[in-house]
Order: sequence, then structure tokens, then C-alpha cells
Amino acid sequence: MAHNPPNPQARGLDVHELAELGRQLRVDAVRCSAAASSGHPTSSMSAADLIAVLAARHLRYDFEAPDNPNNDHLIFSKGHASPLVYALYKAAGAITAAELQTYREAGSRLEGHPTPRLPWVDVATGSLGQGFPIGVGLALSGKHLDRLPYRVWVLCGDSELAEGSMWEAFEHAGYERLDNLVAIVDVNRLGQRGPTRHGWDTGAYARRLAAFDWHTIEIDGHDVEAIDRAYIEAAESTRPTAILARTVKGSGVTAVADREGAHGKPLPDADEAIAELGGDPGVTVRVSPPDATAAANSFTADSGAKLPTWQVGDDIATRTAFGQALAALGGLRPEVVGLDGEVGDSTRLEFFGKAHPDRFFQFYIAEQQMVAAAVGMQVRGWSPYVATFAAFFSRAQDFIRMAAISRATLRLVGSHAGVSIGEDGPSQMGLEDLAAFRALFGSTVLYPCDANQTVALTAAMAGLDGISYLRTTRGDTPVIYAEGDEFPIGGSRVLRSGRGDRVSIVAAGITVHEALAAADELEAAGIPTRVIDAYSIKPIDAETLRRAAAETGRIVTVEDHWPEGGLGDAVRAVFAAERGRPVVASLAVREMPGSASPAEQLRLAGIDRTAIAAAVRDVVIPADQSDFSDEHSETTFAHQQPGGPEGIPEPESPTGRGGPGGMDP
Amino acid sequence: MAHNPPNPQARGLDVHELAELGRQLRVDAVRCSAAASSGHPTSSMSAADLIAVLAARHLRYDFEAPDNPNNDHLIFSKGHASPLVYALYKAAGAITAAELQTYREAGSRLEGHPTPRLPWVDVATGSLGQGFPIGVGLALSGKHLDRLPYRVWVLCGDSELAEGSMWEAFEHAGYERLDNLVAIVDVNRLGQRGPTRHGWDTGAYARRLAAFDWHTIEIDGHDVEAIDRAYIEAAESTRPTAILARTVKGSGVTAVADREGAHGKPLPDADEAIAELGGDPGVTVRVSPPDATAAANSFTADSGAKLPTWQVGDDIATRTAFGQALAALGGLRPEVVGLDGEVGDSTRLEFFGKAHPDRFFQFYIAEQQMVAAAVGMQVRGWSPYVATFAAFFSRAQDFIRMAAISRATLRLVGSHAGVSIGEDGPSQMGLEDLAAFRALFGSTVLYPCDANQTVALTAAMAGLDGISYLRTTRGDTPVIYAEGDEFPIGGSRVLRSGRGDRVSIVAAGITVHEALAAADELEAAGIPTRVIDAYSIKPIDAETLRRAAAETGRIVTVEDHWPEGGLGDAVRAVFAAERGRPVVASLAVREMPGSASPAEQLRLAGIDRTAIAAAVRDVVIPADQSDFSDEHSETTFAHQQPGGPEGIPEPESPTGRGGPGGMDP
Repeated sequence: MAHNPPNPQARGLDVHELAELGRQLRVDAVRCSAAASSGHPTSSMSAADLIAVLAARHLRYDFEAPDNPNNDHLIFSKGHASPLVYALYKAAGAITAAELQTYREAGSRLEGHPTPRLPWVDVATGSLGQGFPIGVGLALSGKHLDRLPYRVWVLCGDSELAEGSMWEAFEHAGYERLDNLVAIVDVNRLGQRGPTRHGWDTGAYARRLAAFDWHTIEIDGHDVEAIDRAYIEAAESTRPTAILARTVKGSGVTAVADREGAHGKPLPDADEAIAELGGDPGVTVRVSPPDATAAANSFTADSGAKLPTWQVGDDIATRTAFGQALAALGGLRPEVVGLDGEVGDSTRLEFFGKAHPDRFFQFYIAEQQMVAAAVGMQVRGWSPYVATFAAFFSRAQDFIRMAAISRATLRLVGSHAGVSIGEDGPSQMGLEDLAAFRALFGSTVLYPCDANQTVALTAAMAGLDGISYLRTTRGDTPVIYAEGDEFPIGGSRVLRSGRGDRVSIVAAGITVHEALAAADELEAAGIPTRVIDAYSIKPIDAETLRRAAAETGRIVTVEDHWPEGGLGDAVRAVFAAERGRPVVASLAVREMPGSASPAEQLRLAGIDRTAIAAAVRDVVIPADQSDFSDEHSETTFAHQQPGGPEGIPEPESPTGRGGPGGMDP
Repeated sequence: MAHNPPNPQARGLDVHELAELGRQLRVDAVRCSAAASSGHPTSSMSAADLIAVLAARHLRYDFEAPDNPNNDHLIFSKGHASPLVYALYKAAGAITAAELQTYREAGSRLEGHPTPRLPWVDVATGSLGQGFPIGVGLALSGKHLDRLPYRVWVLCGDSELAEGSMWEAFEHAGYERLDNLVAIVDVNRLGQRGPTRHGWDTGAYARRLAAFDWHTIEIDGHDVEAIDRAYIEAAESTRPTAILARTVKGSGVTAVADREGAHGKPLPDADEAIAELGGDPGVTVRVSPPDATAAANSFTADSGAKLPTWQVGDDIATRTAFGQALAALGGLRPEVVGLDGEVGDSTRLEFFGKAHPDRFFQFYIAEQQMVAAAVGMQVRGWSPYVATFAAFFSRAQDFIRMAAISRATLRLVGSHAGVSIGEDGPSQMGLEDLAAFRALFGSTVLYPCDANQTVALTAAMAGLDGISYLRTTRGDTPVIYAEGDEFPIGGSRVLRSGRGDRVSIVAAGITVHEALAAADELEAAGIPTRVIDAYSIKPIDAETLRRAAAETGRIVTVEDHWPEGGLGDAVRAVFAAERGRPVVASLAVREMPGSASPAEQLRLAGIDRTAIAAAVRDVVIPADQSDFSDEHSETTFAHQQPGGPEGIPEPESPTGRGGPGGMDP
């Protein structure tokens, strides 16, 4: 496929004008950082000529139509060079000089690091080593999904080449021969607190990149003609190209040029600096829109595709239900893509891969690149489902954090949740994933307990904005919901209830089945028990929980997760400031597991049916009463009425305070 | 420094015996996986000859004295090859044949993936791409801390070379010329679900590694003589050496050898497989203990070192107090080491670096390698303090998760917490770190609000086991505690209290100062308010919170963090199943921040003094009462007694239920 050609030189500026544009970008970077009294002008100045030549002669981008599918993509992986980003936008006429001076002010869309609050910014950057792997995702989109000739240009810092995520990305791009991808590395030799490992030795980077099957070009990053030639050479390469540009941090201003200690702060004297730069040249640039007008590829829906269903009583793992559901969903929704990190046979994403090989992407064991690629793909409107073990999403935690800042829409599916995986032991157990995904801006956290519910939630995720997370279970669990049952996001299912319920067990996923078994046992022992399947952990079904609190007075949560940040915390947060505040006792994994069978693990962790039943008894018979005497305790228990918690005498407060709170509905 | 020499060949086995030992390891890997009905025998069989030759001729290790400082270190970065680990231990006489057959049983220390429950295992592995960077930390320890001739041998899988963390480690080891480090790469060409990117092309790996300044050797990984020569060559290299060994997954058994679909499961017929392997050879190996008897280096304490102090009223950032405290602590405790990820000027770890350059390690922007190195160093008894931005610890989340499984003792210090950093915007803000560190087995989470408290907690961390986390603030805050004040882990400080307090504000870090200001305003408005500094978020001071609940009835938590998983959840968890369950209203960051000044950020996030005062009023005047009418609400407010919450009428429950709970102490 031929990619967007560079602008004919006639349409660009001449060499002097290119240098003037570079000077303009420096002046504006200095000026806006001075206005903000913060920012990274020196890291912007080093790359100014690289960006000037790109904008004038090579970038194909319609600032008036940022959604034009044929636009090139320009990502500042070194997001701290935001003064340069915004200086470029001003030079291109996208923002005014006045708006540029709002840099870093409250309410300004010109944030300290760029975010997609600006229509020309694809993704938030600022955590180094992320913009480039996201660019790999966009380049994959261009070649394999959109099938359009756009190019992806990524400005990288030299410091960020220390991040492993960059090498995941170099490896993947080299392997995939992404000839539509150009990494422009601003080798200014100085990191935040001093020299980088390799300083100005662009050869050190070139050797590494060449070994990773990249085409490399070493240049003086302030020689506009050399820069121009490098971009032309990159366009002709049949491999991804890295331009290793030796530059001067703070170039053009003696007070800061190539000096340590000048990182991340305004220049000492902006006026003097601008004077030394030769004053404001008043230059603008016309960035050429793409010539190409082709529409993006779309895949064909399969009108015959049908989501799978199971019969109540079938035994099937939710991970398997997810995989089969996604394979079908891929037929119904041709924008769905699947991303695997070499565990598709475990997560069951392989079902999707077999059904839709043209929308399935293998990233090998490179979870950061996998998540980053998904972020890139959703920029172009694709709907990525990314699956790995729940535990291994923690490898990409910073990418997920930044994806939320990018307002990205991602569907992440974590299998092998909790101790219930069994023998493999704690390294493979997702025991902190609920905490991680709850503490994410705008996230949705789902945890199905059976196959039909999994299918419904997998499909529902396709309609959600932001980051949604589905937690699946390794082992088989019985199907308890009928085909066609609905599971709205933010809902729950009351699986067992009666007017006389004296306690509510709130469970999700694997523990729903344990809760149901415990409720059987408790019912037989005269303790009618409500069971709530809180499949939507965030948002949680506050309404149903409030009703349960009002009607049953006590709640026991049970989760296959550490005690912090998961279901228990989510349930308690519902009642935080309400007058009706039930007891919310929580069962969770409190000791480090080892190896054991799944059933043994649940038992050893104290989250199986037996532990649940015991916990229910503990809250139904307040511990302080059983302290009086064994006899008294037993009597109290025998006297309890099935009608509700009011049958249980509570000792008077020693201070005589009645106080607010309690079980008001 | 001369490293542990290989055993003289005379002490080892001859070529035939080496092959027999490889066969023994295969037989035992097959056998124990069969007993467990799970495990990874095929991934063990590919590396059996590599490990046989290492154990017989090159590894210097005293199984009877695993703490011998001169022992070599052998890490299975491909931790799923645990059958091979345990087969080796059996062959070396460290465990019995009977114990080997307990593999993966409940209670067995032979877990699905190795953990330090076994005295010969340095660190837990099983999340790929981690054992090797930890090995880099051990190799750094050997050269720069212990100054002992031990070698570090790491068995790596080929699949895990897709992880960026491996390339962070290769880069760092090459840069540091760690000639005491050998990576043995088991290139069996098959990952979990199919072929790796480079298959058996060991040259592809060799090119990459050579570019990263490694010495590389490509061999047939089943040719025991070639393996032996490679280890000898590695020992003679002045650079770190990678042995790229072409192997056959499942080697020796036709049913599984080099076959897809045979990953992570027992062999179809173990008896047949053992027969095909030639039966049990009954071979053992004597692993030679190290000749060296030198004691490990220790640094000299500075008896004159003194922890810094500040005067009440001074303005100083807690990050700065941390840096100065650690510099002094390094004098008092010569086992303390500091690890930086190129942000030491921001985290203030640079103070330590300047005071103790021989115990300061720069990892550039490679947070995974930084944390992994700390895990390696603590294996040898060093006490690592690792500092980066709070947000960027998320880059190493999986390493921190695994460190907890390793029962590692690490001190992690995250600066730039929360929106209060100001203009830099959300990419630099730690807003999920409390959730992440709370949901970690055995963790301690600390968040000081002033400089003297920071000093005390920084010093206290040195005495803690497990993973402790200190959250610091970017901007200056006033010193409110006197020199010498004590701050026990699990404690809190009641900063303001009186008999008539009607509400308690629970704050930590930056919000303590906002809470104090709000309390001033509330006091003036006739609402006496308790203020609690919950500097120990985990464990939290349940006792003081219970007293506050009993005496003030209502709690407002305020934190510079997302609402999930942080201080609010921690406080509510205290009251989960207790009869005294106060209102716990929580202020937290609920919208995505942009850029703004620190004070504006606190205001915009609704966690400043004004928002706190408003929240207190909301809980003191229950919202449902103000719903009756504006007039009624005002009347209620005017009638409130300063004496306590009992002055506030609560409407009767519509159902007439009084119920348990409420504000009993």
C-alpha cells in the first residue's frame, strides 16, 4: 500500500523558511511556558526543527477535520514537550496566540501534558514510553483495519528509550514491518536530572534498533535539510524507520542550551531568550491535508451470527462463555477487534481469533504493547477487547491509568481471577484487579458468575464508554440464569429472597455459587438468607443493596480478592453517608495462598460455603452477646425471629447515646 | 574481581553422566507433574540438560547453607518450569523423592510456581519477565554492595523475551557490564499457545543482545559438551553473557516433543514417557559449595548522622523531608540503599545519592528494572528505598505484586501524590496509589502531612517487614508537629478535639492542612469539629476511629485520591461489622483534573477547606431534614446543640424499625 506522500516541496517552505518556523516554535514554547511559570520549554526547543520540517513538508493533516480518516497521526510520546505541541497548533492556525498564553491555566484545554480535550490530540501522553507503543497500535490500524495510507509519526525522547515498553513496541513494529510508522527520536542527551545512558551516541540507539529490524537514520536534528531528507527516506522505506536526531536541549538560548538543571522549568529570562532567538518571526505554516479521500475499511457483519446460550444446569467456565460470546459478537459488530498476549487458549480469546483472524492481533507476552495498541485502535473507532490473566493486567497498569486520561474506550477481560484457579498458585491469581479497576476514572467493573450472564455482559460492554473490565473464572461453574435473562450495567440479581430474610449475602462470580450453597444450609438451620449476585461491581446496584439493608439488616460480602478495594469496599461505600447503615461483614482472601485444588483454595481462604455460613451466623448472633455466656448466646439464637433483625436485642450504648444511623431504610 | 570459578571438571560428572542427570531431571519433572495432574513438564524438559550441566559443573551453592553469602544465585525466570526446579532439588539431595511427589498439593512448599517458602528460592517467579531483572539486582549487589564473587545464573524462557522488562534489564546489565550475570535462554520455540516470534532463530536474539552490549553464545541446548563450553566461556567474559540454547520442548518424549498443545499439562502417559526416557536412572548430583569464604562487604555507619528536624511553622515539602531524612538514615543504617528512576531531583532521593553515592543506583526511566533490582538487593539483606512519582509505580505494579508473593521487604516512596501537584496535570498525579498499595498482601501504607512526621515514618519504614509505601507531597506544607513527636505505625494523631465535637474529619497528607482550616471555620460557626491525621492508612488506627465515632457520631474523610480504595474505604472497613457504624461521608477526587495551580486543584476537586466545611455541614444537618422545607432545615440547624449528635432529631424509620446499629461505641 502506498502511504500518504510527502507534500511536494513546492508546497512547503524553503530552507530558510523552515528554519524560521523552527525559530517560531521555540519562541512560542518559551513564551507560553513563561506565561504559565512552568512547563518544559527546553525539551520543546530541542525538537522544534524536527517538528517544523515535519509540519511544513511531510505531515498530511486537516486541522479543520481531525476525524478525516486519511489524516496522518502525530503523537508526542514525549508529552512534556507540550509547549511545542501547542506552538505547532498556533503556527498551523488551529489555536490563537491568545489561547496559547492560557497554557496550564485552570480550565484551559492546553494542559501541562496534552490530552484529547484538544481535537487534534489522539491520546494523552506524559507518562513516558507510552505514546510510541500507542503509535504502533495506530500503525496496525492503518495497515490491517482501516487499510488507509495514513502515516504515524511519533516524537520520542531519548530518555524514554530506557522504558521496556519502547522495546516491546520496537520489536512488534519490526516484526510486523510497519512501514507506515516513523519514530523521530529527539536525542538531546539530557534527561530530567542529568545525562542519559547513551548521551549523544545515536549509534548506540541505531545498533539496537537495527537489531530489532528497523531502518535507522542518524542526523543532526537542527539541520533542516538533513531532517527533510530523513523524512523522505523514511517514506521510501519498506520497514519502520527511526530517525535518530542529535539535538541540543534548549537549543538557541545560551542560558539553557545543553545545560543540566534546566529541565522542566521556564527559561530564566523569557524576553532575553526571545531576543536571543531573534525575536518573534511571525511565521505560520500551512499543514497540507491528505490527498487521499478513500473511506476506511469496514468489515462485514454476519447477519447470521448469534450469541451463544447455555441451559440452566450446564457446567461451563465463564472464560469459555466470554470467548464464545466474543466470537459471535465479532460477527454482529464488525468494529470489534481482539488483542491477545499469548494466552488466548487460557482466556478463550482464541475463539474470536479463529472466527475473525483479520481482526485478531497477537502481541506475544507484551502486555504493555497489547494495551497500548488497543488505545491506538480505539482512536480510529475500533472496539478493542483485550484479554489476559487478571493478574497480568497489572503489567500494563500505567497504560490503563493513562488510557483513562485519554478518555479511551477499552474492554479488558481478565481471566484466572482469584484463588479459585487452584494449583498454579498466587503468581497466576488476580487478587487485586477489582481494586485496580475500581480506582480508575470512569471505569465499569463486571464479574459474572455464569455463562449466560457472561454472554450478556460481554455484549453490553460493546456499548459502554470508557474502560470496562470483565473478570472471568478459570473453572467450570453451573449455569443458573436462563437464556435471554437481562443484566443491565449497574444492576444486580436477587437470587434468593423472602420476607423473613435476616441477612443478605452479596457475592459475585465464583462466590455466588458458594453463597447459594451457604443459603441452603442456613435456611435449613432456620436463618432465611437473601443472596444477591452483584455482577456489576462498579457501578454497584445501590438500590437493591439499600433494600436488602432495610429488609435484612445485615450484609455479608464474599469475594475471591484481597480484602481491600473490592466488593466489600464497594458495598460499604453505598451506605457511607446514609442513615441506613447495615453491618457489612466481609469475607475475602486474607492470607497468601499456595497451591491447592480450587475447592481447597476456597476453603483455605475462608470464602467457601462453610465460611460464608459461619460468617452469617456471626453477624446474626452479635459476637458481644455470645460473650455473655454460652448459654445466653444459645438462648438468644433460639429466640430469634425469622421476621427480621428487630428480634435481636442490642445492648444499650454504654454512653446512653441512641444516636442516628442504624437500619432505617 | 574474580568470580566463583567453575568446578574443576574432575569434581563434576563425565559427559555420559551429565546426560544421565539431564534424563533424571526429565523423569522427575514428568513424574511429579503426573502426581499433581498439572504443571509444566514440557517446559522443564527443554531446559533439563542446561540445568544438569550447570548443577554438576558450574553452580557453586551450598544447599545446607542457603544463606552462605558466597553462594551463587540461580533464578528460574521461567517459573512455570517448577518441576525442573524441584527435580534439581531432589537430585541435589535437598528434598526427598517423597516430597517431590507432593508437588502442587495443599500445604506443600513445592508450589505450582516456586516461592521463597523453599529456602533455596530467592524470589517468587511465575509472572514472566521478572526473574531476570531481579537477577540484575542480585548481580549489582554482588559487584557493588556485597562485593563478593558469586555469580547470578538466570534461566529464561524465549517467550518472555517479548516482555519489555527483559530489555530494560538487558540494557541495564550491559551498561553496567555485569560480568557476574549469565542469562541462559531456553529457546524451545513454543510459547503457551503456539510458536514464538523468532522460533528457533537464536541469531535473532543474539543480534539484539549483542546490540545491547552482551556477549552471546548460540548452542544446541541438548549437547552437554556445548553447554559446558558455553558456561566456561561465560565465566571468562568481561561482559554479561547470554547463552542462547536451541532446545526441544518436551525433549525426549515423542508424544510431546516440539508439539503445540502440550504446554502446561502433564504428559498423556507418564509411565510410557518415563519408559521412553529410559527409565529412572537413579542419578544424583553433588552441587559444589563455593570455595570463597569472604564475608560480605558492609558499609560504615556514620555515628554522627542525625535525622533532620524542622520547627513548627516552617514550610517544607514532605518529599524534601523524605530526601533529607533518607540521607541521614543512610548514615545511621549502612544497609540502606537508594534506587532512582531518573527523577531523584523530584522525589528528593538525590539527597541520599549525594550523601551515599556508593549505595545509590540510577536506573534511568525503567521503573520495572528499578523495582526488580530492589527485590534482588533485599534478597541479600540490603534495605532498598525506591522512589519515583506515585503515579509511576503503576508501571511496576506487577513487580510489586510479585514482590509481595516473594515476601520481599521493600520501601517504596511515591512523590507527586494527587491533584495538589498543580499544573502538570493528571498524567503526573498519583490518584490510585493508595488503592494499589492497600490491595497488596502484608503492605503498610503511610502518608505524612508534615516534615517531622515524614522523617519519623521514613525511619520507621526501615524496621518494617514486607512492602511499605510512603506517599509524599510535591508542594510545601507547614510543619505542625514538634521535633521528636512519635508516629507509630498503625497510629494516628488527633489534632483537634473537644468533648463537644459533633463530627470528625479524617484526613491524611495534604488534606490534613485543609481539614484544620475547615475546622477553624466550623468552630467559628458553632460546629466543634475533631480532626484526625490518619498518617497510617494501612494499618489504620481503628481504636481512635472508634472513639471518634462513639464521641462525634459522624465522620468525614477527605483524600487527594480517587474515591475508590483509599482512605474512605479504609475508614469504613473499620466499622464494617461493628455495632457502632457512623456516617462516613467521603470527599475525594471525582472528576478528571486538568491543569491548574495546586490551590485551584484542591478547590476544583472538592477537597479543600471550603468543600470540607460544606461536607461537614451536610452530615451534621441530615439532608433528608432539609428536604422538609428550607425553613425547617434552618430551624433544625439553629437548634443544634454543640454537645453532640444526640441533639439532632432523626426521623423515624418509615417501616417503624429501630433496628441495630447506630452510634453505639
